[in-house]
Amino acid sequence: MTREKLRVGLDIGGTKVHAVAIDALGEVVADLRRPTGYGTDAVLASAKAAVVELARLAAVQPQDFRSIGVGIPGSVDAEAGRVANAVNLGVADLALGPQLAAEFGVAVRVENDVNAAALGAWHLVGFGSPLTAGASRSMAYLNLGTGMAAGIVLDGVLWPGSHGTAGEIGHIPVDPNGVICSCGQRGCLETLASGSAVARQWPTRHPLPVVEMFEAAERGDALAIEVRDRLVVGTAVAVRILILSFDVDTVVIGGGVSSLGMPLLGRIRATLDEWAAESAFLAALDLSDRVEFVPEGSAVAALGAALAGDPHRASRAAGAA
Amino acid sequence: MTREKLRVGLDIGGTKVHAVAIDALGEVVADLRRPTGYGTDAVLASAKAAVVELARLAAVQPQDFRSIGVGIPGSVDAEAGRVANAVNLGVADLALGPQLAAEFGVAVRVENDVNAAALGAWHLVGFGSPLTAGASRSMAYLNLGTGMAAGIVLDGVLWPGSHGTAGEIGHIPVDPNGVICSCGQRGCLETLASGSAVARQWPTRHPLPVVEMFEAAERGDALAIEVRDRLVVGTAVAVRILILSFDVDTVVIGGGVSSLGMPLLGRIRATLDEWAAESAFLAALDLSDRVEFVPEGSAVAALGAALAGDPHRASRAAGAA
Repeated sequence: MTREKLRVGLDIGGTKVHAVAIDALGEVVADLRRPTGYGTDAVLASAKAAVVELARLAAVQPQDFRSIGVGIPGSVDAEAGRVANAVNLGVADLALGPQLAAEFGVAVRVENDVNAAALGAWHLVGFGSPLTAGASRSMAYLNLGTGMAAGIVLDGVLWPGSHGTAGEIGHIPVDPNGVICSCGQRGCLETLASGSAVARQWPTRHPLPVVEMFEAAERGDALAIEVRDRLVVGTAVAVRILILSFDVDTVVIGGGVSSLGMPLLGRIRATLDEWAAESAFLAALDLSDRVEFVPEGSAVAALGAALAGDPHRASRAAGAA
Repeated sequence: MTREKLRVGLDIGGTKVHAVAIDALGEVVADLRRPTGYGTDAVLASAKAAVVELARLAAVQPQDFRSIGVGIPGSVDAEAGRVANAVNLGVADLALGPQLAAEFGVAVRVENDVNAAALGAWHLVGFGSPLTAGASRSMAYLNLGTGMAAGIVLDGVLWPGSHGTAGEIGHIPVDPNGVICSCGQRGCLETLASGSAVARQWPTRHPLPVVEMFEAAERGDALAIEVRDRLVVGTAVAVRILILSFDVDTVVIGGGVSSLGMPLLGRIRATLDEWAAESAFLAALDLSDRVEFVPEGSAVAALGAALAGDPHRASRAAGAA
């Protein structure tokens, strides 16, 4: 019996590299996390070490992997396998794809981290295998991490945009009286609903500010309630924008903030239902039935990177950024 | 020499049916306008009469047409060729596609009017023939008619959405202090930037309220300036949302309001440039270079209907609404 070739996915974040190896069905058969180095050389070394270690865990040689997919923040030129302006990683410009391909002799694809996670979410919510092209479903993956951005999957294929910047809805201004965003505009969605928005409004040494804030709000803390309600409404606004713009079947929410789970999802749905009560137009769109969270504890980003890396699937447009 | 078969496009609006016959290159070879009847039977009769008259103009028999495409407002189920809830036409439900196909023995496709116009705009702005699939360009057609809605063309293929409601950005609320929209929400984009928005704020018997308002604003009329500036900013907001969401190469603006031409486009671009001056993020997106108007006097909706009707092109997802 010939052993099937495994696909590797690397989710390279500011603090850790999460690496998985998946089989043909998309099941995770090996999984590890290790710290990410800072700077171009260190990031490259972290990625290489993760692949080597993963091969050891899976009891294969690195060159036996079928493919390596990488999800990484920053401006990604998927065709060239380059990443630029990954500020949190200290990477100005890195030909990550060609370097990994040369090291291991395996096909490599680099994607923006949110786009990669979108493919993982697509798989995890059971929209059929992303390997079968043409599944007539559509999904927006709304990432509530440090910032807010969405990855768009139409008919099972990633839509990265004409310049690789589709889904930048976190920088749609929605509050003329809001704070100045890191992007220079005022009152962007991201200043209401994201990890950085909560951290700004709820300063704490707690390792999970969002969790602490949410608990304080449940206890009746006035500031916490304000911060929580902004998070809930901002997320509901993002869902409304995604469905009115793209008319995706489903918006799947992931990222650190989504670890709040049902208490947050319940409030988002309640907000969407309140809006529907005032608008027959919105009511007909069933917004609250079209939003869900990624399954808890799922390796959405690393899994998506592995799926993105498969040479038999490709995103629809050139992902040059 | 065998004469090539012509494709028919019908743009069915509240007051008139605009019908064109186009050749293989998309050139209009016959063109007519006639009043639209009100109610299901009258709309169907108007459509049939337009096809017959167009055949006479083109000196062919109706059954010699290659295809008939129809753009019509309302909820369109493109697979079934049905239109529902076309309020301005007095049509609750009409199997327009099957009826026309039975009458003339020609393939018929019915599309939502804005989606059809998007295909016409795609052709007119020179993004290559929409008949060649896979052109790696993307475009949003922003229609400023009575209402505001967008049609989305990705890689040369219409993206109608999972339920046929993609591009409903006119109902994204942007002003918490705005007026109640016909959809029941408050401060929708459509209440700022559309024909109905101008008509509400600038009551007049002038046949083109937008033109009169714009001229009054140029003369310094305070109310007109307010109405104009709302129109300009609302349109710029729509462009920003379309590019941040879809990252389309270009936003092409059409519809009655766009007849204002360069004076309006210039102000929209100036607004986008002002925003770019305050945000390096927006500046990098080159918003003002990515917006244009449909060529003046072009038959964008009827042409698009003819292109939509071609049996060799199909939209990506089921257009069931």
